[in-house]
Amino acid sequence: MSIREEALHMHKVNQGKLSTGIKTEVKNAKDLSLAYSPGVAEPCKEIYEKPETVYDYTIKGNTVAVVSDGTAVLGLGNIGPEAAMPVMEGKAVLFKSFAGVDAFPICLNTNDIDKIVEAVKLMEPTFGGINLEDIAAPNCFEIEERLKKEANIPVFHDDQHGTAIVTVAGLINALKLTGRQMTDIKVVANGAGAAGIAIIKLLISYGVKNIIMCDSRGAIYEGRPEGMNPVKEKVAKHTNRNCESGTLEDIIKEADVFIGVSVAGALTKEMVQTMNPDPIIFAMANPMPEIMPDEAKAAGAKVIGTGRSDFANQVNNVLAFPGIFRGALDVRATHINEKMKQAAVEAIAGLVSEAELNVDYVIPGPFDPRVAPAVAAAVAKAAMETGVARLKIDPEEIRERTMQLSVIGKGE
Amino acid sequence: MSIREEALHMHKVNQGKLSTGIKTEVKNAKDLSLAYSPGVAEPCKEIYEKPETVYDYTIKGNTVAVVSDGTAVLGLGNIGPEAAMPVMEGKAVLFKSFAGVDAFPICLNTNDIDKIVEAVKLMEPTFGGINLEDIAAPNCFEIEERLKKEANIPVFHDDQHGTAIVTVAGLINALKLTGRQMTDIKVVANGAGAAGIAIIKLLISYGVKNIIMCDSRGAIYEGRPEGMNPVKEKVAKHTNRNCESGTLEDIIKEADVFIGVSVAGALTKEMVQTMNPDPIIFAMANPMPEIMPDEAKAAGAKVIGTGRSDFANQVNNVLAFPGIFRGALDVRATHINEKMKQAAVEAIAGLVSEAELNVDYVIPGPFDPRVAPAVAAAVAKAAMETGVARLKIDPEEIRERTMQLSVIGKGE
Repeated sequence: MSIREEALHMHKVNQGKLSTGIKTEVKNAKDLSLAYSPGVAEPCKEIYEKPETVYDYTIKGNTVAVVSDGTAVLGLGNIGPEAAMPVMEGKAVLFKSFAGVDAFPICLNTNDIDKIVEAVKLMEPTFGGINLEDIAAPNCFEIEERLKKEANIPVFHDDQHGTAIVTVAGLINALKLTGRQMTDIKVVANGAGAAGIAIIKLLISYGVKNIIMCDSRGAIYEGRPEGMNPVKEKVAKHTNRNCESGTLEDIIKEADVFIGVSVAGALTKEMVQTMNPDPIIFAMANPMPEIMPDEAKAAGAKVIGTGRSDFANQVNNVLAFPGIFRGALDVRATHINEKMKQAAVEAIAGLVSEAELNVDYVIPGPFDPRVAPAVAAAVAKAAMETGVARLKIDPEEIRERTMQLSVIGKGE
Repeated sequence: MSIREEALHMHKVNQGKLSTGIKTEVKNAKDLSLAYSPGVAEPCKEIYEKPETVYDYTIKGNTVAVVSDGTAVLGLGNIGPEAAMPVMEGKAVLFKSFAGVDAFPICLNTNDIDKIVEAVKLMEPTFGGINLEDIAAPNCFEIEERLKKEANIPVFHDDQHGTAIVTVAGLINALKLTGRQMTDIKVVANGAGAAGIAIIKLLISYGVKNIIMCDSRGAIYEGRPEGMNPVKEKVAKHTNRNCESGTLEDIIKEADVFIGVSVAGALTKEMVQTMNPDPIIFAMANPMPEIMPDEAKAAGAKVIGTGRSDFANQVNNVLAFPGIFRGALDVRATHINEKMKQAAVEAIAGLVSEAELNVDYVIPGPFDPRVAPAVAAAVAKAAMETGVARLKIDPEEIRERTMQLSVIGKGE
């Protein structure tokens, strides 16, 4: 069977990938009297009197909604909420497999920002966290910003921050390997979508001063007459201090780092040759990267990462989101803040020891069983340190628990 | 341990009653490539091109949302959406245990009719059906009516129709036992909430002509000067043709059937003694019925049903909703219409054979493993016959499949 046939078969034979798991079976009158009437009234009354106990007596504390409107699904674009379901179910499978987080897909039949924000806020009693997924830019920015302000549970747009966290983790190790500092490098980011914007924000928080972002019209700069929007205006204000204009070809000269979240073939050998010596390339267009690793290498690139599992240094969000939510849920964090994201970056980067670090290994593999536990512990610690945690738990305990909950690395 | 302690312990030790079940584990790169990127794109593309295949490739076709605003929870009243969570989780457990239906609680943080309708409609891509639960009257009527019109998946308010279906099933058998016909009886229904209204509607569809409904102010009649609302106006129009006024005590005289969905103690021995000979009493207030069965019997009642598991003839919704949704989902019904509800009534009533029928057995027990399969088959058949089914399946096949999916009667 081709992968197409195999994937269709697997989805069809099971009618999707999720089911309702039951922690306490109901087979007789005794079971029924505890799980349902009359016993169920007891936890209801407790929660009514002490609202915080909803985390003790219900699934809320371990349950994340994977919310999408289906406008920017994988490489498929705006295919709508029904067609997005397999991806959201898949995401839920990953949450559970990698970190024991119960997740449930919620695909919404609207592209309207207000309606999405409202619907998610209305569902808040059920969920301990919200993972926004595959919502197109620029709507995704406003939806996330508003929900972060208006909801009392962590909200995280994985396409932005998951990708950013893993990319920056890889970059930290790539810089070590090439003897550079964040403060000194010139970074060119190609692609002004959700991931690109989040990556440059995170880089700025790491002290990178020289960043130029390009979109399909070339460099984004203050006062560019065409193809701007409020998000790009903000990008222009915080990057490209010399207001350079021009195409990617012009801008890439003497750059140290290329970050591609754009389209196949956007970066040529010739462009790589104009970068500073030993350039670092993250070419993350899917399924075909901005430049193929062998070509980039031939043109002088030192470290190359892509989104693909068949090349070294895969930038895979699964390194980040399961552990991030695990840690946030475990300490009942109200938000996922910048320090928690940075903690995730450093936990991921830190798993590549100095002894192992090499050009083909700047990022741990997606099935490295140490990752989600390390991320969960680090994120929980950062949440406690920054005052957004409602519980205090020893991070080591969270690491060990996550290791137990995860099925990764536990054989076939 | 008391039931209170045991129920609290059970809910806390498991942190609720549900988890995300995974049909296909992801432990390695091959699993990941099928369940997630890149293989997941294949079912996405199929659904985009043929929207109906969302039922083949995703969980939609077997998944019901249990939606509540927490305004009328069990006997607890308006305790809010967080405190309602244990009940909605419990309902999901019953859906799964009794009929293999995957269900997920959605507790909404609003009492606003428009917002509830909108939120549920927005979530439609994820769910194959909507079970409304514990939403207070009269809001529940408008919410259900609007969703039935505006959504393309079955919508069912269990507090109304589940209770009505099981009550009428019991009544059919009680009438057989006492040699009465639906067309000849006088029914007095006490309590004008969601369940009461649905019961009298269903009784009218079964040909009952003489019904009087009472609320806390006594009989509801056209032109009653106080305590009316649009729902009660409608009740007045379709019942109580002689516009009788008075208290329950006045109205109950010469009635054949009492239906109580009101409060403990509402029906006295003396009132029962004024009913026609061999009266039938369904006293379903919870946890204490309108009259205790021994008292009713002493006053001359022939058949007595309550909501309680410790007396004969328990009116338990679990006899209806799992099989109803099982049948509706299996044939991809767009609605749950009156004929499907009647099919459920007759399937439940029909499981009590003439040989077994007696005053203490007019309703099958809640753990009778034949019930959900029989209801599912009958409901699916009615859906196909009334043109609301999108699939044709042999009802016998549905009965057998439901029997396999159910855990009821399969040992401890």
